[in-house]
Amino acid sequence: MTPSTAPIVDGSSRLLPIVGDPIAQVKSPEVWSAMFRLHGINAVCVPVHVRPDGLAAFFRAARGLENLCGVIVTIPHKVAALELVDDLSDRSRLARSVNFVAFRADGRWLGDTVDGTGFVDNLRTGGDDPRGMRVLLVGSGGVGTAIAFALADAGARELVVYDVDERRASDLAARLRAAGYEATTGMPDPAGFDLVANATPMGMQGDDPLPMDVERIAPGTVVADVIVEGSRFTRLAEVHGCRVYVGSGMMNHQLAPMAEHLGYGHLDWSAETVTRVASALRP
Amino acid sequence: MTPSTAPIVDGSSRLLPIVGDPIAQVKSPEVWSAMFRLHGINAVCVPVHVRPDGLAAFFRAARGLENLCGVIVTIPHKVAALELVDDLSDRSRLARSVNFVAFRADGRWLGDTVDGTGFVDNLRTGGDDPRGMRVLLVGSGGVGTAIAFALADAGARELVVYDVDERRASDLAARLRAAGYEATTGMPDPAGFDLVANATPMGMQGDDPLPMDVERIAPGTVVADVIVEGSRFTRLAEVHGCRVYVGSGMMNHQLAPMAEHLGYGHLDWSAETVTRVASALRP
Repeated sequence: MTPSTAPIVDGSSRLLPIVGDPIAQVKSPEVWSAMFRLHGINAVCVPVHVRPDGLAAFFRAARGLENLCGVIVTIPHKVAALELVDDLSDRSRLARSVNFVAFRADGRWLGDTVDGTGFVDNLRTGGDDPRGMRVLLVGSGGVGTAIAFALADAGARELVVYDVDERRASDLAARLRAAGYEATTGMPDPAGFDLVANATPMGMQGDDPLPMDVERIAPGTVVADVIVEGSRFTRLAEVHGCRVYVGSGMMNHQLAPMAEHLGYGHLDWSAETVTRVASALRP
Repeated sequence: MTPSTAPIVDGSSRLLPIVGDPIAQVKSPEVWSAMFRLHGINAVCVPVHVRPDGLAAFFRAARGLENLCGVIVTIPHKVAALELVDDLSDRSRLARSVNFVAFRADGRWLGDTVDGTGFVDNLRTGGDDPRGMRVLLVGSGGVGTAIAFALADAGARELVVYDVDERRASDLAARLRAAGYEATTGMPDPAGFDLVANATPMGMQGDDPLPMDVERIAPGTVVADVIVEGSRFTRLAEVHGCRVYVGSGMMNHQLAPMAEHLGYGHLDWSAETVTRVASALRP
């Protein structure tokens, strides 16, 4: 069978939609579909471009479909999805964000988020355990919030949160403190931190401003970004001698906990394997 | 790039869902996806298992999606879909059946059916023009009705319609007559016809009864069936010396008129090419 005709989808295929707006930039369809194929699972991850005003209708329709295996939720739907599921995992409730919907055996839909655990696991795989670290977090939206709670849960000593929306930042800091963690708001000045993280979309466009002043980051600092392929910021940080992590690593660490929900947890979804498969997909 | 990792779907892929219940048996995902790939079109046909009570919700949701290129409708939704589109083609109105939804530039949804034209074009490609033929049609549901009008339109001399649901058969015959064609109801006795067609699902299961008595078909008669891979009926007819057409041929002739709706009419969707691509997909 030649590559040009090898079927990846047939009538029996189950679907794992990823819903977002925009959608063209997502890497999940390629990575998940390649991993399904690797494991001999007849399923395919498909991009579904849902406008915000169409999300509720999409969820209503999805409940009537028989061959979905779950739903991956991405920007800008992670908060709205909170209201569209039946139950929330503890981390989704804390993060006020859903990036995966799992279908339970009893028919109830569970909203979960693995953004935070993906972020932390990515650092750990690279040898940078956040335990004891002082963290500057820029961005306190859905992803930033998930990351904040996962870092706190992983033993980060202190979190300083910055957001252009000051109220959103102070709200997150207050919720972290209410959960028993050390957290304050502050300016996006990276000097003196062990870990600085960009959880804003800044860097998705090539000419976006930097989320913080790279010159103020000490060489050797851990710098992490949620932008999939990294950005001008992460490239400058790398040149500056920082230890850099980008969004693709965070994403590649999310498949294992999602696959657990899908009932495929016994197979190999290690970041090492996912990264190898994802690398092979690059042209 | 190896076959096992060649991506067929990424974030930019457009989706062509086929909705049905059941769905596992459909061949459209493989055939369409292979044809899209052949033509370098970034789109994928995906099976969507929609229960009848979920069809309206699916259509409502689909209207809010930005990356669908159309919707293929199959059993048992072809009649219900009539009410879920904005406009109907003449042949859909006559056949009271929709098997394809095209999105017009002005945002309106057009329901069309190419079951009939696919059936007739398949016969013609095989050298059997229905013009002047006496036809026995068994089955007067959505597909049967579409086939009846297409055969009449192609110049069939007379249609005799049989259905276990007598009222449905006489209703179809009356509508054919109202449109100016020669049509009556009759028993499923194939003796004396030039063309006998099975447009019922009989034969989808291996132990289904035969739709008519094969012994009563004269050798050389044209026998056509809508069952994709044929059935015990078509295999017996073949042994009996009939000229046999099965559903896959009818289906392979439907891509061209559907692709026209998708804006890809200038590319090669000839049944010859589709059949070659479909054959290459078989394991």
